[in-house]
Amino acid sequence: MSEQPPGPELTLQALTESAATGFNGALGLEFEEASPERVVARLRIGPQHLQPYGVVHGGVYASLAETVASVGAALSAARHDPGSGAVGLENHTTFLRTARAGAEVVAEALPQHAGRRTQSWRVAMRDAGDGRELAVANVRLIVVRPDSI
Amino acid sequence: MSEQPPGPELTLQALTESAATGFNGALGLEFEEASPERVVARLRIGPQHLQPYGVVHGGVYASLAETVASVGAALSAARHDPGSGAVGLENHTTFLRTARAGAEVVAEALPQHAGRRTQSWRVAMRDAGDGRELAVANVRLIVVRPDSI
Amino acid sequence: MSEQPPGPELTLQALTESAATGFNGALGLEFEEASPERVVARLRIGPQHLQPYGVVHGGVYASLAETVASVGAALSAARHDPGSGAVGLENHTTFLRTARAGAEVVAEALPQHAGRRTQSWRVAMRDAGDGRELAVANVRLIVVRPDSI
Amino acid sequence: MSEQPPGPELTLQALTESAATGFNGALGLEFEEASPERVVARLRIGPQHLQPYGVVHGGVYASLAETVASVGAALSAARHDPGSGAVGLENHTTFLRTARAGAEVVAEALPQHAGRRTQSWRVAMRDAGDGRELAVANVRLIVVRPDSI
Repeated sequence: MSEQPPGPELTLQALTESAATGFNGALGLEFEEASPERVVARLRIGPQHLQPYGVVHGGVYASLAETVASVGAALSAARHDPGSGAVGLENHTTFLRTARAGAEVVAEALPQHAGRRTQSWRVAMRDAGDGRELAVANVRLIVVRPDSI
Repeated sequence: MSEQPPGPELTLQALTESAATGFNGALGLEFEEASPERVVARLRIGPQHLQPYGVVHGGVYASLAETVASVGAALSAARHDPGSGAVGLENHTTFLRTARAGAEVVAEALPQHAGRRTQSWRVAMRDAGDGRELAVANVRLIVVRPDSI
Repeated sequence: MSEQPPGPELTLQALTESAATGFNGALGLEFEEASPERVVARLRIGPQHLQPYGVVHGGVYASLAETVASVGAALSAARHDPGSGAVGLENHTTFLRTARAGAEVVAEALPQHAGRRTQSWRVAMRDAGDGRELAVANVRLIVVRPDSI
Repeated sequence: MSEQPPGPELTLQALTESAATGFNGALGLEFEEASPERVVARLRIGPQHLQPYGVVHGGVYASLAETVASVGAALSAARHDPGSGAVGLENHTTFLRTARAGAEVVAEALPQHAGRRTQSWRVAMRDAGDGRELAVANVRLIVVRPDSI
């Protein structure tokens, strides 16, 4: 996976392996579901996710959103054109509530528009305990040939 | 620093120590300058910052922007009211160019508005090699009493 | 209404009158429903809403979103504190599909977070004909005393 | 101009005529300068630009930003490929200060990235009186063939 961009054959197994490397590995997320229609991942908050006030760093939510939206967009792009993938253009993350170490965040990405040239995904990040939204994000991506990145 | 929110006496030394803990420590950034008017930090890109295509993960830029804007906003808030700090409301990051392992990113945060209730900071993230912008971000923050977070 | 900020007694009748003045009057929207939990407005697209390519100007969606989110936030703020209202901090509008003259756009605003200090609303703007999303927006607002604006 | 999308021959004269039609005409802006490197327009605030509290409606800033960024992007796209133009993907507008009737707003759009597939423009909107920023915007656009819109 580390040498291969996500393709149409992208499996949860392959994603799980990819999640152990690079920035996803540093974040520590786990994929739970991945299809062109929906991507879900979980993140158990530890001290390595906090900012100095002791709450989850805003960058953690933005990063989590970027990952799940990118996986969904890559799966969607590959369905139309097996050799294609997607990279982010814009990530807008809105912070709604604070969370602390010990919390578990569930990120769910759904497509708002899955075009041939660009895609827009909305990501809701909820506290697994009470289901409340901690943050939401809008991620815009462009469909690309990975060898042209 | 890990127990104390940034205060008016926040020094580069204190920031350097704080940058070694939590999510900032996971990112690996180094502060170079920090005042209510300008915050600069550097990040040397390694394999732990990449997404599966081998380029810097968008979340790295969003996280870096969140950190430098938050430090600047905390310093600015504390100047008006020593006990106050700032937390993020919105982070909008625009990705302009890709970078790879070995690159060094310099993030510079400047205030667009430093109000008593909210602040807006713009962050430019440039390739230290050629000076070109890799990403820019707008971060909106609310001034808070850290004990009320 | 033109002299009075929205208050808890804000009725659809009052909103309808306010929609005939200022920028809302220039837009030409009609309110259909307005409560602290949901605001709906309609806009019939005419030549005055188009950009030079003959499709709806992006600013129309952003403006529509700003209006419905602001009305909802003002109603929500006034419920907690009768003298308070809300003004926008950030408006992030995502364009999904194009529409032309003759289309009718229905904007629905729902609260993502209705805090005492700030609020976040999501606005979906759909084609009344086929129900498809034309644009979505995230609007962040701050709760204010109108006499302090 | 109303039938022709902006092309490489787009002149200030042509823009001035286009500014009298559609949503730009409803806004009432005046172009002052337009090139692939910089677009400037002015807007004199009247009662038709206000929201119910008596200050400029946030949608006015978002709309103004969308227009100047789109003109700049169209000029830039047409320089590379005479038949091409640009349409907006995302508009993120940050509100910094309020303004009232009688104020004059100057919007200046500068490219952050003028790629072959997408462009990113930053727009600063200032009070012509004191030069202070009232709002800033980031607009992302996609390069298109106008006949494919």
